[in-house]
Amino acid sequence: MNKLSGWEDTIVALATPPGVGAIGVIRLSGNHSFDIVNQLFPSKDLEKEPSHTLHVGYLRDEKQLLDEVVISLFRGPASYTGEDVIEISCHGSSHVQEEVITAIVGRGARVAFPGEFTQRAFLNGKMDLIKAEAVGDLIASQTSAARKTALHNMRGGFSRELIEMREQLIEFSALIELELDFATEDVEFVNRSKLQQLIEEIKLTALRLADSFKLGNVIKNGISVAIVGKPNAGKSTLLNTLLNENRAIVSEIAGTTRDTIEECININGLLFRLIDTAGIRLHTTDEIEVMGIEKSIEKMNAADIVVYMFDVNTESRTQLEKEIKLFEEKGIRYMLVGNKIGGNSVWPEYEGVSGIYFISAKHNIGVDVLQTALYRSFVSNELASDNTIITNVRHYEALQEMLQSLSDVQQGLNDNIPGDLLSADIRQCLFYIGNITGEITNEDKLDFIFSKFCIGK
Amino acid sequence: MNKLSGWEDTIVALATPPGVGAIGVIRLSGNHSFDIVNQLFPSKDLEKEPSHTLHVGYLRDEKQLLDEVVISLFRGPASYTGEDVIEISCHGSSHVQEEVITAIVGRGARVAFPGEFTQRAFLNGKMDLIKAEAVGDLIASQTSAARKTALHNMRGGFSRELIEMREQLIEFSALIELELDFATEDVEFVNRSKLQQLIEEIKLTALRLADSFKLGNVIKNGISVAIVGKPNAGKSTLLNTLLNENRAIVSEIAGTTRDTIEECININGLLFRLIDTAGIRLHTTDEIEVMGIEKSIEKMNAADIVVYMFDVNTESRTQLEKEIKLFEEKGIRYMLVGNKIGGNSVWPEYEGVSGIYFISAKHNIGVDVLQTALYRSFVSNELASDNTIITNVRHYEALQEMLQSLSDVQQGLNDNIPGDLLSADIRQCLFYIGNITGEITNEDKLDFIFSKFCIGK
Repeated sequence: MNKLSGWEDTIVALATPPGVGAIGVIRLSGNHSFDIVNQLFPSKDLEKEPSHTLHVGYLRDEKQLLDEVVISLFRGPASYTGEDVIEISCHGSSHVQEEVITAIVGRGARVAFPGEFTQRAFLNGKMDLIKAEAVGDLIASQTSAARKTALHNMRGGFSRELIEMREQLIEFSALIELELDFATEDVEFVNRSKLQQLIEEIKLTALRLADSFKLGNVIKNGISVAIVGKPNAGKSTLLNTLLNENRAIVSEIAGTTRDTIEECININGLLFRLIDTAGIRLHTTDEIEVMGIEKSIEKMNAADIVVYMFDVNTESRTQLEKEIKLFEEKGIRYMLVGNKIGGNSVWPEYEGVSGIYFISAKHNIGVDVLQTALYRSFVSNELASDNTIITNVRHYEALQEMLQSLSDVQQGLNDNIPGDLLSADIRQCLFYIGNITGEITNEDKLDFIFSKFCIGK
Repeated sequence: MNKLSGWEDTIVALATPPGVGAIGVIRLSGNHSFDIVNQLFPSKDLEKEPSHTLHVGYLRDEKQLLDEVVISLFRGPASYTGEDVIEISCHGSSHVQEEVITAIVGRGARVAFPGEFTQRAFLNGKMDLIKAEAVGDLIASQTSAARKTALHNMRGGFSRELIEMREQLIEFSALIELELDFATEDVEFVNRSKLQQLIEEIKLTALRLADSFKLGNVIKNGISVAIVGKPNAGKSTLLNTLLNENRAIVSEIAGTTRDTIEECININGLLFRLIDTAGIRLHTTDEIEVMGIEKSIEKMNAADIVVYMFDVNTESRTQLEKEIKLFEEKGIRYMLVGNKIGGNSVWPEYEGVSGIYFISAKHNIGVDVLQTALYRSFVSNELASDNTIITNVRHYEALQEMLQSLSDVQQGLNDNIPGDLLSADIRQCLFYIGNITGEITNEDKLDFIFSKFCIGK
């Protein structure tokens, strides 16, 4: 998509999910929104109605009655996109919706590209790129943690931190450039040690933000858990116990194919994907099957964590230690779960083996502790909604580049390099900030970002 | 559901289809709608805002930020249900929607039953039962004919005809009852021959309406077409040719299981269901397989029409006549289609066999004529949107009963029966009219009607 062509177009799309429901909402944005809908809405002149009002009536084209609808008017710039926006709430039949969209397209609108409403909001200065991306994250959110993080960024939490950093850097950069104008007089407007201190502070903030990506990624994409173990260790019983209490509403998102995922659970607002471990073999005595084992190790490594389940009544310490050795050697993150504990509370067999969670999956004993431990192994502190958490790999990469350029500035200050070189390094750092917020970015990148949105947003 | 209990409740439901989209709309109706949403919407006092206005802001409960939303206000009685209605347009994530609904339920609303919004609209006198049922039909509509019929009834087309009949009957009924008051004086206020004429007119209208059900049923439920024939007659080629030009958007409706349906096409706004004819055998020489043939005939009888396809290059007249005989004997409605016509335009082999459509499914020759014929065999006149067409079996049955009572009135007039008996017959007739419009109906029937609606409508 080329934003230059058709930028003056009025766009239209179904904004609600397809399918049968009580209502469906069709959204228009652009200069001709009011004009187009007015042609289909004989009972009132919408051009004369104030913004932020609702109007009930029939839509009709020259041939036929289309539907009885409720029309919402939003005049730009006080609208989502900053342009004139109309939302038509029609009856929830795909046929009706298609007829209405066809009539609108017949009067000069064109069907919107995915994310084009939000892209227009961005290009019209209604939101920066971080907020626009947060809208997409909010729509895709399946847990409270993902929702909170997206809302925080939609409300400008991350943007504010970046703006603050940028303003401080710009101030110094300006002073340094002023020095250059007076270069022959050899003055220093900028206190070098103060700049050192500032760069250190900004670096700490950027580091904190970059570090949050580990958690952010987990919040956004969930955690994949492979429950492995010998047959009859109780894997499916544990799965059922976990599901009974925590089954997540996971919406089907078009285009995502996660063939191996079995079920999702929601623990404290985090999404855990319990992946299908059929075909994962831990050991073999057969030389020919070694290749199979290698594949299994690959699969376990692809999971964020492996839960190794064993039956405390049959698993020997030697066997258990063999598994632990395998995980350690292969660098697989793991948790040990001893199942079928019955009435016992101590297991001399495993004395000295640390980190075993003893449970009865069948009688739901110890499963809550296991759950909390699983959660805690990914989230060390409570998720506070007022902390910025980076969930976007694009932001993470820009932060890494920013950190590199901050190090360059620090190095330059230490080496006492000339102001013009220092200024160039600071500008580089500003470039990466602008990249994140979308002030400096190219069209292809924008198109890529918005193409991942759904149509109608 | 008992409408008496909880009639004062405020109800809430998702009004848009579930799933991921740009937005989802949550609808509330009831006395506490404004109060409840106000508690979650800190930026403005919605109670003070005028009806039919839009408000942008954040929803939050005591613990957390829920979403950024647009709120539509409709104060009763100028609302869909006649009560105070609020619609919340939130982001299209199932998780977000569930959190918002949970917060609303936490403040005293309850989740609506299917169709409860429309049921309240009916009970509050915002629409009669015919219009309420038409709302359901409109949502389920998949073709323009179904949409037009539903809209006609939503706008009161059918209701007007019934109201007119009822008013005329009431007038006569009143006069006859007046006669009864003066019974001893042996006066006749009612011109008997004029009453005869009126009843005849009403009967004609009721007959026209009842007759329209045949078409109405076809409009609402579509027409099932079984394309049968020997292997290699070109059945799947015809199917593909039809689908290429007419593929219908058929939404998946929860709860409908039509295991045998293969594909749907839309011809001139009517939905044709091309049913799977695998397993349909026309003939056998094997005695044991006779039972299979019986089943096949059952299946063909279940279809609205059977299209018998044959290869004009291989089918003998004898064979063809054998098939025709089978269809005629078994009372199966059929069309004959001779395929693979090549360059020929006359087929002496079949001279005198009437009603064969000669086509080339592969080269798309004659398929348009076949389509038109298929359509015409169900719709004799153009579908005009200003004719009332009955699509509801409940209405059809009530019209049949009404016709019976009209015949009773006619019979009574012919037999010159006393006014009180005549009056009773007219009252019976009024009862059936009231049954259709919902003026006279019982709670169980209402619950049954509205339970077929989707949640949120």
